[in-house]
Amino acid sequence: MNFSSKLLENAVAEFAKLPGVGQKTALRLVLHLLNQDPSEVERFGHSVIKLRNEIQFCRVCHNISDQAVCEICASPKRDQSVVCVVEDTRDVMAIQNTDQYNGVYHVLGGLISPMDGVGPSDLQVDTLVARIKENDIKEVIFALSATMEGDTTIFYLHKRLKDFNINISTIARGIAFGGELEYVDEVTLGRSIVTRVPYENSLSR
Amino acid sequence: MNFSSKLLENAVAEFAKLPGVGQKTALRLVLHLLNQDPSEVERFGHSVIKLRNEIQFCRVCHNISDQAVCEICASPKRDQSVVCVVEDTRDVMAIQNTDQYNGVYHVLGGLISPMDGVGPSDLQVDTLVARIKENDIKEVIFALSATMEGDTTIFYLHKRLKDFNINISTIARGIAFGGELEYVDEVTLGRSIVTRVPYENSLSR
Repeated sequence: MNFSSKLLENAVAEFAKLPGVGQKTALRLVLHLLNQDPSEVERFGHSVIKLRNEIQFCRVCHNISDQAVCEICASPKRDQSVVCVVEDTRDVMAIQNTDQYNGVYHVLGGLISPMDGVGPSDLQVDTLVARIKENDIKEVIFALSATMEGDTTIFYLHKRLKDFNINISTIARGIAFGGELEYVDEVTLGRSIVTRVPYENSLSR
Repeated sequence: MNFSSKLLENAVAEFAKLPGVGQKTALRLVLHLLNQDPSEVERFGHSVIKLRNEIQFCRVCHNISDQAVCEICASPKRDQSVVCVVEDTRDVMAIQNTDQYNGVYHVLGGLISPMDGVGPSDLQVDTLVARIKENDIKEVIFALSATMEGDTTIFYLHKRLKDFNINISTIARGIAFGGELEYVDEVTLGRSIVTRVPYENSLSR
């Protein structure tokens, strides 16, 4: 693209680095900001710089937090003996939104993916093992994506944790509520028959 | 959404104000930035702040520019007597990319839209009239979107300009190159028959 201004070109180039944002979208976003009040744009720019510079990660569960220990880990109302292992902060938010879980979390910060060069040492795995060793943890729940990387990570973590005296479970996989049977893929459908549950356990709340 | 951090929530809220960006996309973008180097994020944030604070608009054609008079308006190689009237800087870029136009531009900064409360006084209309009055302009080309707003704007501008001794034209409307006849809407197809051109003028370069 031929930009009429270097400043514009720079800003568009920065936006185009964001995932899923191409040159045209970047230009649209930048022109939108250009139409805003300077103070608005100032606030926009500083919000990300401030976030990046001041963000902390909870030293217990490694979730994004404003404090050294996050609200969930510090809460006396939550069951600190049940740990749900997730990939990132979005998964914590998604599970929190269900209102169905009252334990605590452990945020790995990614999934094991040899293709992308991500190994266990890049993730919060050792801290998870240490956390189980040093605290009175009764159950670990793996809530990871049902992908190759998710399964690899569960397989590895299970190997590391199986000798501890804890219950290890994964969240249930099967047909989504509201899902139509004919559109479900074979693997999911097949597994959902094999791992069928008693009728009284299957009802939506 | 339940954010685990106020800083995160703020940044997501700022991103979610961008057009076409919802909460989930905003969160994805912000988490991406959080994984970048602080210096990268600094550069991102400052690029928009700098753009907003330092941007200039060419005082001749009102296009975004780094100088008081943009490169196109200052160029001796371009025909300063032909003015192409466009909505915004994206249209200038699009026309420049075709390599088919050697005149200059006039950026209105929007289109007349009573529904959105945009009238002629909100646009660079008076400056266009003054420009034609004070300079030796031979032709004005309207290159505006073929929408209700575009047509309204052309209608209004034509009324303002018709008493000047200049040629007034609009860019051709019709079937796009590569377009299949059966998928073209009736209005476009009908007009393209009425405004048919001699065969030798119709060939793609």
